[in-house]
Amino acid sequence: MDKLAQRFNGPPGQEDMPYLLTPGPLTTSRTVKAAMLADWGSRDIEFRRLVADIRKGLLGLAGCDGGYECVIMQGSGTFAIEAALGAFCPKTEGKTLVVANGAYGDRAAAILTRLGRPVTRIDKGDSAAPTVEDVVTALDADPALSHVWIIHCETTSGIVNPIAAIAREMRRRGKICMVDAMSSFGALPLDMMDGIDVMVSSSNKCIEGVPGFSYVLVKRDLLLASKGMSHSVVLDLYEQWKGLEANGQFRFTPPTHALVAFHQAMQEHAAEGGVAARGQRYARNAQVLVKGMRAMGFATLLADHEAGPIIQTFLTPRDPNFDFEKFYEELRRRGFAIYPGKLTRRPSFRIGTIGKVDEKVMTAVLAAISAVLREMNVTDLAPLEG
Amino acid sequence: MDKLAQRFNGPPGQEDMPYLLTPGPLTTSRTVKAAMLADWGSRDIEFRRLVADIRKGLLGLAGCDGGYECVIMQGSGTFAIEAALGAFCPKTEGKTLVVANGAYGDRAAAILTRLGRPVTRIDKGDSAAPTVEDVVTALDADPALSHVWIIHCETTSGIVNPIAAIAREMRRRGKICMVDAMSSFGALPLDMMDGIDVMVSSSNKCIEGVPGFSYVLVKRDLLLASKGMSHSVVLDLYEQWKGLEANGQFRFTPPTHALVAFHQAMQEHAAEGGVAARGQRYARNAQVLVKGMRAMGFATLLADHEAGPIIQTFLTPRDPNFDFEKFYEELRRRGFAIYPGKLTRRPSFRIGTIGKVDEKVMTAVLAAISAVLREMNVTDLAPLEG
Repeated sequence: MDKLAQRFNGPPGQEDMPYLLTPGPLTTSRTVKAAMLADWGSRDIEFRRLVADIRKGLLGLAGCDGGYECVIMQGSGTFAIEAALGAFCPKTEGKTLVVANGAYGDRAAAILTRLGRPVTRIDKGDSAAPTVEDVVTALDADPALSHVWIIHCETTSGIVNPIAAIAREMRRRGKICMVDAMSSFGALPLDMMDGIDVMVSSSNKCIEGVPGFSYVLVKRDLLLASKGMSHSVVLDLYEQWKGLEANGQFRFTPPTHALVAFHQAMQEHAAEGGVAARGQRYARNAQVLVKGMRAMGFATLLADHEAGPIIQTFLTPRDPNFDFEKFYEELRRRGFAIYPGKLTRRPSFRIGTIGKVDEKVMTAVLAAISAVLREMNVTDLAPLEG
Repeated sequence: MDKLAQRFNGPPGQEDMPYLLTPGPLTTSRTVKAAMLADWGSRDIEFRRLVADIRKGLLGLAGCDGGYECVIMQGSGTFAIEAALGAFCPKTEGKTLVVANGAYGDRAAAILTRLGRPVTRIDKGDSAAPTVEDVVTALDADPALSHVWIIHCETTSGIVNPIAAIAREMRRRGKICMVDAMSSFGALPLDMMDGIDVMVSSSNKCIEGVPGFSYVLVKRDLLLASKGMSHSVVLDLYEQWKGLEANGQFRFTPPTHALVAFHQAMQEHAAEGGVAARGQRYARNAQVLVKGMRAMGFATLLADHEAGPIIQTFLTPRDPNFDFEKFYEELRRRGFAIYPGKLTRRPSFRIGTIGKVDEKVMTAVLAAISAVLREMNVTDLAPLEG
């Protein structure tokens, strides 16, 4: 097995932890993890400064002017999604259009339904991006639609949606534009000033932190107007923000270690060259992986112009010897945890290309895949369907 | 400054991190933090085994028979509190009695109010424990009361409430008994078989893990009956449990590093001698601290038989030279972060006696307090009021 640096990153007894080639949690740098070797007091001044730094840094990364606020929420990305939907989506006057092309769009619509908030969904399947026209057509058909929720990179397939063009059109029409940039923020360009009113992302994606919290960037006037809107106390973004603004403290215990690790991750993100450099590394990862997989005979779900650099979806081969469980386990044993489980409608599997990994890791996983296929006696890699 | 082992526990540049003498986040062991030096895949079989281990271990620690389940929830302790209140407290038929003697009882009542669930509150102030008679009197006065929510150790003052006696009486009367054991579980005895139907605690308290998640132990029949009850998707305990049971995976990304650290913390808890030994160490911490503080002239808010070993509340001295901000900062500079801010009605401050600290640390903080008082020229330590 290749002696790749990151492999020898675990504590004693775990030196052989695999690379995580998933949409998160990801492989993070040694220094990000080492930042968690201290216990910080959540109400201590130094910790409060660090949190203020993170909030300011995130606003800067998203190109926000002074009219935006950053609110951090405990829990995974979906906690911030539910918090944002609960804060900003209308209860009676108005309605939210969810632009879905995969499981994450469906989930946002399901949350709105649970919250009893009016919602309409566009369903583009899971291998096509919505166009500005798709959204405009839906808006024209229902004058009650006041808010639009759209996903930047749909992790179901890895497809990248044209959020900038859609946001600009929403601004022109006076609609509130909300973006789930969970798996893209920090690696794909995103400019709130295009007309994005609300953006949600999480700690364990392209900034390369560890899981534990998520965050919402939002126009201050929208946040102020959301007072009393939330269906929940813990997920109440307005109250969470008020607490952070009042004394820099969280209302409820924050994941201190994950926040300190994220602060380190943001510094490493900047040192690498910011969004552009991170996006380029991931794009190179994706190119190396897709090229190598195609050379073996695999087909991708998406066309190259649609696929982002975050996660790559490969169609399940029709060879009867291909057994995904075994394929996964054998790769795992060789040091690569790919993404288990399928989300797309066509039989497929996914390999993440984000995290502290580079093209050397991609070359190594390709060699491992090739070896596993030989071992499984899989030769016909043409897709199972189509 | 004393060269206490734990002080030299931070990563490079943070070797002088202070001891956390708060109700959490706490000072944790080096080995608990070192467990976070690896990235685990949240859907990987090894991680799923570790989560199963944690869930089983927590049920065992609480003395549960086979009729209970453990559900882990992302976020701080309050996330599990809101999740439990939203799952189990009746919407129409029935009503919840919150037995409050401090800020945490008030918070539970506030959450129920936000959720629109019928609630009645007993208020015992913040320096008296409720008796079985108090609860029975409230129940007798309102036949609609079906559920009781009570706090084991109220972190506002550190007072320990008689939950076992109350739980047994609730069982006799057929009431559902729910216990917030946030700051006590793992150090004070708690036996679910006394008639506790629901118990809530968190990762960063007496098990000495890091913050990032909380957990609910609950009778299986109650959990099954809670399907569809939650006001939230992410806080839905029934769905969270169903996901964990189906394939051992969380529905939404868990804080992998915090969970791995907690697994290590549970092993260290057992190695120390379990609940009894942990409780004894904390009790010794509390004895040394309170004795030393009284020797200087400080008075405690609570009588000794009411105060638990978790956190100690001292009355603010009347000496006009005593300035809490300065007191806090000077102790912080000497390596001890005590709990900033007051929660009780009488002017007071708190010092936590839990976490990976022992009587040597208590002796050291007493010496630091004495030095700071001299520096501040504080001589009259009699309480400001009373």
